[in-house]
Amino acid sequence: MLTLFHHPLYASCRFVRIALGEYGEEVSLIEERPWTRRKEFLALNPAGNIPVLLAEGDHPLVGASTIAEYLDETRGVFQRERRLMAEDPFARAEIRRLMDWYLVKTEAEVTKHLVHERALKPLMGGEGAPDSGAIRAARANVRQHLKYTNWLAATRDWLAGPKLSYADVAAAATFSILDYMGEIDWREFEAARDWYSRMKSRPSFRPLLAERVRGLAPASHYADIDF
Amino acid sequence: MLTLFHHPLYASCRFVRIALGEYGEEVSLIEERPWTRRKEFLALNPAGNIPVLLAEGDHPLVGASTIAEYLDETRGVFQRERRLMAEDPFARAEIRRLMDWYLVKTEAEVTKHLVHERALKPLMGGEGAPDSGAIRAARANVRQHLKYTNWLAATRDWLAGPKLSYADVAAAATFSILDYMGEIDWREFEAARDWYSRMKSRPSFRPLLAERVRGLAPASHYADIDF
Repeated sequence: MLTLFHHPLYASCRFVRIALGEYGEEVSLIEERPWTRRKEFLALNPAGNIPVLLAEGDHPLVGASTIAEYLDETRGVFQRERRLMAEDPFARAEIRRLMDWYLVKTEAEVTKHLVHERALKPLMGGEGAPDSGAIRAARANVRQHLKYTNWLAATRDWLAGPKLSYADVAAAATFSILDYMGEIDWREFEAARDWYSRMKSRPSFRPLLAERVRGLAPASHYADIDF
Repeated sequence: MLTLFHHPLYASCRFVRIALGEYGEEVSLIEERPWTRRKEFLALNPAGNIPVLLAEGDHPLVGASTIAEYLDETRGVFQRERRLMAEDPFARAEIRRLMDWYLVKTEAEVTKHLVHERALKPLMGGEGAPDSGAIRAARANVRQHLKYTNWLAATRDWLAGPKLSYADVAAAATFSILDYMGEIDWREFEAARDWYSRMKSRPSFRPLLAERVRGLAPASHYADIDF
């Protein structure tokens, strides 16, 4: 079985879990707290970041996009309808652009700050009180990212085009964390909400909706398909 | 012909230029200052980051890794010896891990700060004096990245394995900027220096070695193959 070093509040880790679920792969999860820089983990991945997937032969694969490409090359390519990548090079580039958008850009402008200030600081110890300026800035950015997602969802069947892809998985992984924390007001973003409702109803999403983070209760609508 | 929106002090842009050179592709260069958030550029790429490659049909491709994968799918796959990607999925994952290492991790810990503080602030205006704390921290990190590169170069023919790959291109693009700015003391890192000397002697590297950034003179050894 595959093994994933992950943390429940990292969008890039949720991304890999949903992708594995879509491909029907079972995975053994190990919760890693990358800020502790655990020696055994650094031996697997000297960069120290998560996710890390131990693939066949316990070969470590580092980072969400590297794992996504590996899963496409070893699983996706043998699927037809359920493949999370396109075949056409331009369509593949669009999927990768949006994976990057959510897992790098939204992460840097929104997710990282809200998760760090509201959820991780208390876990890390000695990091002081939440920085209200950082939280305010991230909250202002959430709206921009929802607006863009709403535009994509309103003009396409799925975010990168006619089929479900890694782009949807990356966006849904990101929004699932923000939604857990009650940081999303869906009312103004109807197309994005409809799209997210479709994502939530997928079996690959269920384990995430059932999960609870110690010391941080989810928003009341978090696990509802209708919200 | 292809068109690249780039800036000479962004490692991810140099990466694309070297890769195009390796594949024998001519490219028309447009210098973009992404911090100005130019309207026409944002219409091409709403994320506002560089590099952006206008490929066949002026189709915009955003970001170094997306461009690298596209070039592999449309060029590399037809090359044998000169392909910058491997065929085996694990070897491909190793190349991608190291591309990320240099273009994301080294960028975040070293390159971005030194370029911003020493070269871009004067161009941007209204940004104040260089932050000597940021420069000091980045300089301390340079050594760690050189040490790791030295280890890779000492234990493998090329950084990701037996063949030149995108990993070498990403590392060389990064170090070429740091070396231009005189930020690298190669003396302690012999294997890394030998590897970088091999990279410098490639025809794809020549345009970068001939280039000068206005207002910033290169280190005296910058363009020498023997340094």
